[in-house]
Amino acid sequence: MKEAELIRLFTRGAPLHGEGVVLGVGDDAAILRPPRGEELVVTVDAVVEGVHFDERAAPGDVGWKALAVNLSDLAAMGARPLWAFCALAFPRATGARALAAVGRGFAACARAHRIVLAGGNVSGARELSLTVTVAGAVARGRALRRDGARPGDVLCVSGTLGDAALGLLPGAPPAATRRQRRPIPRIALGRELAGIVTAGLDVSDGLLVDLGRMCEASGVGAEVALAALPRSAAYRRWARGADDPWRLAAAGGEDYELLVAVPEARLGRALAAARRARTPLAPIGRVVRGRAVVARLQDGERYRPAATGWDHVH
Amino acid sequence: MKEAELIRLFTRGAPLHGEGVVLGVGDDAAILRPPRGEELVVTVDAVVEGVHFDERAAPGDVGWKALAVNLSDLAAMGARPLWAFCALAFPRATGARALAAVGRGFAACARAHRIVLAGGNVSGARELSLTVTVAGAVARGRALRRDGARPGDVLCVSGTLGDAALGLLPGAPPAATRRQRRPIPRIALGRELAGIVTAGLDVSDGLLVDLGRMCEASGVGAEVALAALPRSAAYRRWARGADDPWRLAAAGGEDYELLVAVPEARLGRALAAARRARTPLAPIGRVVRGRAVVARLQDGERYRPAATGWDHVH
Repeated sequence: MKEAELIRLFTRGAPLHGEGVVLGVGDDAAILRPPRGEELVVTVDAVVEGVHFDERAAPGDVGWKALAVNLSDLAAMGARPLWAFCALAFPRATGARALAAVGRGFAACARAHRIVLAGGNVSGARELSLTVTVAGAVARGRALRRDGARPGDVLCVSGTLGDAALGLLPGAPPAATRRQRRPIPRIALGRELAGIVTAGLDVSDGLLVDLGRMCEASGVGAEVALAALPRSAAYRRWARGADDPWRLAAAGGEDYELLVAVPEARLGRALAAARRARTPLAPIGRVVRGRAVVARLQDGERYRPAATGWDHVH
Repeated sequence: MKEAELIRLFTRGAPLHGEGVVLGVGDDAAILRPPRGEELVVTVDAVVEGVHFDERAAPGDVGWKALAVNLSDLAAMGARPLWAFCALAFPRATGARALAAVGRGFAACARAHRIVLAGGNVSGARELSLTVTVAGAVARGRALRRDGARPGDVLCVSGTLGDAALGLLPGAPPAATRRQRRPIPRIALGRELAGIVTAGLDVSDGLLVDLGRMCEASGVGAEVALAALPRSAAYRRWARGADDPWRLAAAGGEDYELLVAVPEARLGRALAAARRARTPLAPIGRVVRGRAVVARLQDGERYRPAATGWDHVH
């Protein structure tokens, strides 16, 4: 297949024009006009066959997820999505139908979260991968960083935890499978929380791992009550028969929920912001002095998961 | 190796702070302040083992080239480099030493062309690859596009052609090998030519292929005199014994020189701009009406290369 056909196949259905796009897909580079008085937030993330998904994954889900995990990073910064760039690499044997399906999944996510596909690249490779760069905008100084948490802040997490990890288990309920395959970036919530919370990030590698990162960046510790972790009905059913009913919620990964630190005096504002974003937000613990991240069972015992999360690399 | 170690290894030596960088490597995303009154130019390109280089390539050269080919796209738009984002994927067997060398090559190119490494990603994969996104800035409306060439414009190309392709042949002279492994993006020239030329792009897939793209985008044709193509001493030596002495200069690819269309009345200004950028710029032909891209031998015969360039995909 020629490069031009590929690009046509892949871009069909994706928004190609929008805010700030002077020149999009097709030249040596995109020409973009950044919004005045705002800062840009930019991040890049890859999904690679054999690492982030296997050959049984539906191509449409792969396309969706490649963009969604990046949008989740914009959400975690409190930014409004603007522009996406997609570098697609795939083996010679990949059919046009599968590539078109990857493109449709990507385009569906782009439409749902209002981001323009402003550029990209196609290349051969031994496995299918999408490396996506996204840019968003946020008012100056209002981006949610991970280094602002202060002792006394209330830790809150959006949605429910553990479903995406549950979705990987054999016989997983469809709702959990969907969370695994088509994560929803918490864009509206991130934007509402910018300027209210002191720190925020998205839970991609497991709550305790990501909380550890926030604490390390902020120079603080944390105490979390496992019983307070928001869990879906599907998760609770699974947990009844599990050796460790907390494992997936505390350390499963790929939740793509937002974890934020809120000064106690602003907790009411944060919860009101979550209602405006129509997204559940639950207090799960506190930021404390020191460096230790401690999760406690209902009896007050310290919880020690077998694994605290997973490493994207190897 | 842990992700954090990897990042440290890879970023050592790269410029991490600079114009507009509010928050760089380390958070969910970078926070960037775009320069006022300018437009951003953004592009993404990948180098993949087995497609763009093989396992014999020096890791340092791979790191350099991954960034250089992207900087060449910024040069082709007339932009000043600002920020780079690097997504690195590599097989488990890759040693820390090789990764550090890739990082050093990338950093050397970043320092040489004054671009900040503002973010990135690391992932496992079956082969080594770097997917690099770069952003640059250019005064509003001054970016060099490929769609502005007009009949009568003089076509000019920078530097010399064919050396990078020559560098792939067995027994290639060291100067040609160096052009293949460590291409030099024509940043200074692109910036000087912005606002003078009507169209521009970088020669990455072979002069005739890329000229064809400029003509297609601009709705014009072109006539090129092969004898006018700038060739190095090493190229001329190779050409003496070659069946087709024009093949590599006309269709070799990976030159990363700039090809521009200049209205005749501004040719003097363009050549003066090239002198300011200390970069050779040679007239090689004309933009004409119609759609045909014709290259002529010295006797006026039409030249038809066996292959007109190469496709990055498969």
